[in-house]
Amino acid sequence: MSRFLRECYDSLVPYTPGEQLNDKKYIKLNTNESPYPPSPKVKEVLSGEVIDNLKLYSDPELKALKDAIAEHFGLKRENVFCGNGSDDVIAFSIMAFCGNGGELCCPDITYSFYPVYCDLFKANLIQKPLKDDFTIDVNDYIGINKNIIIANPNAPTGLVLTVDEIEKIVASNPDNIVIIDEAYVDFCTETCVGLLKKYKNLIVTQTFSKSRSLAGLRLGFALASEEIIEDLEKIKYSFNPYNINTLGVTAGAAAIADDDYYRECNRKTVAIREKTKLMLKDCGFECLDSQSNFIFAKHNKIPAEQLYLKLKEKGILIRYFNKPRISEYVRITVGDDWQMEEFVSAVSLIAKEF
Amino acid sequence: MSRFLRECYDSLVPYTPGEQLNDKKYIKLNTNESPYPPSPKVKEVLSGEVIDNLKLYSDPELKALKDAIAEHFGLKRENVFCGNGSDDVIAFSIMAFCGNGGELCCPDITYSFYPVYCDLFKANLIQKPLKDDFTIDVNDYIGINKNIIIANPNAPTGLVLTVDEIEKIVASNPDNIVIIDEAYVDFCTETCVGLLKKYKNLIVTQTFSKSRSLAGLRLGFALASEEIIEDLEKIKYSFNPYNINTLGVTAGAAAIADDDYYRECNRKTVAIREKTKLMLKDCGFECLDSQSNFIFAKHNKIPAEQLYLKLKEKGILIRYFNKPRISEYVRITVGDDWQMEEFVSAVSLIAKEF
Repeated sequence: MSRFLRECYDSLVPYTPGEQLNDKKYIKLNTNESPYPPSPKVKEVLSGEVIDNLKLYSDPELKALKDAIAEHFGLKRENVFCGNGSDDVIAFSIMAFCGNGGELCCPDITYSFYPVYCDLFKANLIQKPLKDDFTIDVNDYIGINKNIIIANPNAPTGLVLTVDEIEKIVASNPDNIVIIDEAYVDFCTETCVGLLKKYKNLIVTQTFSKSRSLAGLRLGFALASEEIIEDLEKIKYSFNPYNINTLGVTAGAAAIADDDYYRECNRKTVAIREKTKLMLKDCGFECLDSQSNFIFAKHNKIPAEQLYLKLKEKGILIRYFNKPRISEYVRITVGDDWQMEEFVSAVSLIAKEF
Repeated sequence: MSRFLRECYDSLVPYTPGEQLNDKKYIKLNTNESPYPPSPKVKEVLSGEVIDNLKLYSDPELKALKDAIAEHFGLKRENVFCGNGSDDVIAFSIMAFCGNGGELCCPDITYSFYPVYCDLFKANLIQKPLKDDFTIDVNDYIGINKNIIIANPNAPTGLVLTVDEIEKIVASNPDNIVIIDEAYVDFCTETCVGLLKKYKNLIVTQTFSKSRSLAGLRLGFALASEEIIEDLEKIKYSFNPYNINTLGVTAGAAAIADDDYYRECNRKTVAIREKTKLMLKDCGFECLDSQSNFIFAKHNKIPAEQLYLKLKEKGILIRYFNKPRISEYVRITVGDDWQMEEFVSAVSLIAKEF
């Protein structure tokens, strides 16, 4: 730290991304990426002409990308905000609606970036404990008159609320923003995009990083009322108007249009997830009922940290969170069939040591 | 605006990017882009494998890109911070070192984004008027004990301070950050990167958008002491750890390594700039002595706003700022030979009407 950093950031603890190791070739089941490549359309559109035109600025209005997203969801361009990953979108949302002394309410166990944003933007964070079975108690959020963010499916549990439950939360807090982070929605959960027609205080965020195989492209978006999108654009144009590069705009538009390709990839992931859950149970795991592209599980013999470390030695990365309440669990990304079989046989070997 | 936006942003006036029109084909001399395509190496590296690997997250540490930049400048990776355009880099710098009640001092006429950042991050802005000839009075910044940002060359004037003048400013404000924004440095100005070895309160920012023909890729960077870079990383990891996509990292590293290509492009731009200045004088312009890839000029008959509008009708975009002190001037990006000839003949035609 330099002596120039403003004191208000002294206590800030940044987010810790999943390990991105390249000292050897790993089976990477630690950051919920897709095992499948992006749509072939992505390669088609990243042609010579697009690359030559990188000499010109990208479109700050992101028209092509917004139109493709709007069409996919049956909305208008004015209902779409795009960011450099959904982290960017959520950061702008918390800054706009909760920053400088506002409030934000979320579960105590959820995407660990939310508290960091609150600290960075000086929003007061209120955490509601999950129930003992790691489900969200909907009553904790009914009529509380506070801004709310809920990941649905939640991370790292993979558990979901129904659209009806979310509607109760949104409807009972009409003077506050409710953000539903649907990063993992395409793996079998019902989206609450349909609620946008009825509620002007709802923001739904999604990402290209998981179900659209484009984590490395950095694309996320928010869907909301025109007025909310205008607010987000105001923040964006005061921070970084050209926030998505031309390759991102072009490839993102092509990707979202190729729905058939991604539906098939996601269908495979869901099938492999369910199959893997059975295999995991057979080899001593207790798994939460994840509706996502990861499985949150604890082994009946191997302590979670040991499991994480021993798998890493064997070239398999999973995520271990050394945090209260979840330190006995690991989060395993659902890879392809081969990756999951390698994972299960590695665990079986490790289990013999315990 | 929604009723949910925090009141602290009520007075925020976002930055206005240059027009990005596509209703017809324009000669685009309004946003200081390069007329030349990126290095051929950029196309080579954006291959099929890189695109397939977009399914994985980009490297949040940006090692390949930082190493290429460090090598170019004879620095270490720890001295380099990379952002999603230099706007991102400057935003993080102002947030880190001036946010929440700190101070920042800059010329009254300069890159118009600096005041917006101050407003967004609640930093107090102190503006020092340029002299009547639009030069910066170095004495305004000597020993003032405040954080300072200076664009060198300055925008939209194109005028420069020498490295000796900048050193006086940096040396006389040892307890404050001095940011030198070198977006336009490669068009004939001496960089002050050499001062980094001596001064721990200096941040030099540069961009890939102008002299490296990659405006659409969104890449910028800061060079500074290890401690300052650590601070910027702390903010980045609390905001958006994966802030540059894989295509940006890959293409940026290839571009900065191809120095010969860009030196030749920039040599052409400088030669065309000087030739254009002579042509402009011949057709009634008074030009500032720009050391950048744009020319700031006023015509002896045609009012600036008229000139801007009439050129737009003819399919040529230049930048007009309707602001005190500079409302008689226009800013013209230095394009290629053909673009500048088209510009000069269009102006000659327009001049006949006045």
